[in-house]
Amino acid sequence: MITLSDVQAARARLGANIRRTPMLKADNLSAPITDAALHLKLELLQATGSFKARGATNRLLATPKEELAHGIVTASGGNHGVAVARTGKLAGVPAHVFVPKNISPPKLEKLKRWGAEVQLVGDVFDEADKAARAYAKEIGAVYFHPFADPLVVAGQGTVALEILEDLPEVDTFLIAIGGGGLVGGMGTAIRALKPKARIIGIEPVGCPTLKASIDAGHVVTIDKITTIVPTMSCARTDERVFELVRSVVDDIVLVDDAAMIDAARWLWFEMGLAADLSGAAALAALKGGLVPVAPGETVCALVCGAGPEGIAA
Amino acid sequence: MITLSDVQAARARLGANIRRTPMLKADNLSAPITDAALHLKLELLQATGSFKARGATNRLLATPKEELAHGIVTASGGNHGVAVARTGKLAGVPAHVFVPKNISPPKLEKLKRWGAEVQLVGDVFDEADKAARAYAKEIGAVYFHPFADPLVVAGQGTVALEILEDLPEVDTFLIAIGGGGLVGGMGTAIRALKPKARIIGIEPVGCPTLKASIDAGHVVTIDKITTIVPTMSCARTDERVFELVRSVVDDIVLVDDAAMIDAARWLWFEMGLAADLSGAAALAALKGGLVPVAPGETVCALVCGAGPEGIAA
Repeated sequence: MITLSDVQAARARLGANIRRTPMLKADNLSAPITDAALHLKLELLQATGSFKARGATNRLLATPKEELAHGIVTASGGNHGVAVARTGKLAGVPAHVFVPKNISPPKLEKLKRWGAEVQLVGDVFDEADKAARAYAKEIGAVYFHPFADPLVVAGQGTVALEILEDLPEVDTFLIAIGGGGLVGGMGTAIRALKPKARIIGIEPVGCPTLKASIDAGHVVTIDKITTIVPTMSCARTDERVFELVRSVVDDIVLVDDAAMIDAARWLWFEMGLAADLSGAAALAALKGGLVPVAPGETVCALVCGAGPEGIAA
Repeated sequence: MITLSDVQAARARLGANIRRTPMLKADNLSAPITDAALHLKLELLQATGSFKARGATNRLLATPKEELAHGIVTASGGNHGVAVARTGKLAGVPAHVFVPKNISPPKLEKLKRWGAEVQLVGDVFDEADKAARAYAKEIGAVYFHPFADPLVVAGQGTVALEILEDLPEVDTFLIAIGGGGLVGGMGTAIRALKPKARIIGIEPVGCPTLKASIDAGHVVTIDKITTIVPTMSCARTDERVFELVRSVVDDIVLVDDAAMIDAARWLWFEMGLAADLSGAAALAALKGGLVPVAPGETVCALVCGAGPEGIAA
């Protein structure tokens, strides 16, 4: 689907249009969760609150101006929508973001503050997505897919280039999976630059899209999504993304919602980081002992999105 | 009270017992608040959630073991209490933290999770403090003051050493003031290493302890504290801290509570940072136009503590 040079090109294209987010070592803790040397990539501090700004902005900057004339359309209940709203602002064209009616009020406010034209359609993502694609055709706007797009996958992959520069000794990457674009993009760069590093994907027990597909040997659709985590609720991935993810990950482990809530609270109490539940998924896997690590091993967990979920009322 | 060498000694003493917190440039924003190049020192990601870990830990490590035999006592409704709780854990002795009865439940939980022996006394900090000092004498424990202690002030000053290394071009520092220990310690290092940098302190309109003292030419007591920000509610500073702060700051500006709430929301929306209101005070001053800056000037705002206040329900 993509190669290292696509990720490198994305980085050059993105330039100063995204933030180079910091790394932070998780030390001086009250209750350590691992014997490994744990480092966090703080992608929750990225513009718009998640890594999604990388992929969406790369897609924007690679799109000829004339294709943007009638605006940008996407569907999302989550961080990709906010990232696309920002691309509309950058390009000076309308960004139409279709969201399911059950979207949370804070997310809706965030979309509006980034200037999106928000359309509430349907009860689940797929209905909003169908309406969004029809609308894009109708008005002649360009459609930005959350993950089934080589430019989006390459943009997300730029996270890995920064980590490999800041923490060259990294042994193991822990990366949450929604549709697979992030782990696919990062994995492409990691396999090319540090082939022996271990790449562990993390999915929710209630929506194991990639794990189920890899186990089956082909793309499958999850019948019933039972996780409460909207950013990890993708019932079916894309064929090319599936092939890419299958070729780069060493393993995919599953965490339940309670473990993610617990990990988000740990991040808040120990690190002062307000992560959403997908942002805490990598820590949940480590905390739950699902990823065997050796003492002194260098582990990088991606904290991929911001959210209030770890802050107990 | 202290000199640069005290701050340097603190840094060497602290070693790996505190985190070297990252800097983050505030760019790629929806709504910029300044023409300056704005950089944030993320001290809200420090162990225990604020810079207070630096001063308290420096105090601990400079204290002979035999003086610690009967434990550590302090009074605090805020971040200093949590930092002292951690010193007890590090030293393996009890940390008795006296707090006023109106302490917030999350702060109480945090104290307990760090292993503090918590005593609820009185309605305001001063009553808790009086009881704490009496108790320290009674049991022969050592008392760790939040700011009227050269070792604590020197510990807080280490923040400035890191900033001057990471952002040597810094022109202006924006530093929130509670009792004055942080700005006094940082100011000591800045005046020695970069004498021409501008140092602006920020206090709440509802408790302008240092500003009122500097205006009067001597330490004054604030009669009535009207701010809702507990970490900035210090009615009276210490004589030596007053002399130090007076000698290092260029100016002190006052922000009201609404401006701090607004700035905390801005930090959350734009940066994904969950700061407490004192952590947002420096941004409130900038956002409110209280600190004149030139286009391109390099400004470092200290985000000094973590909290949920910017996350709208």
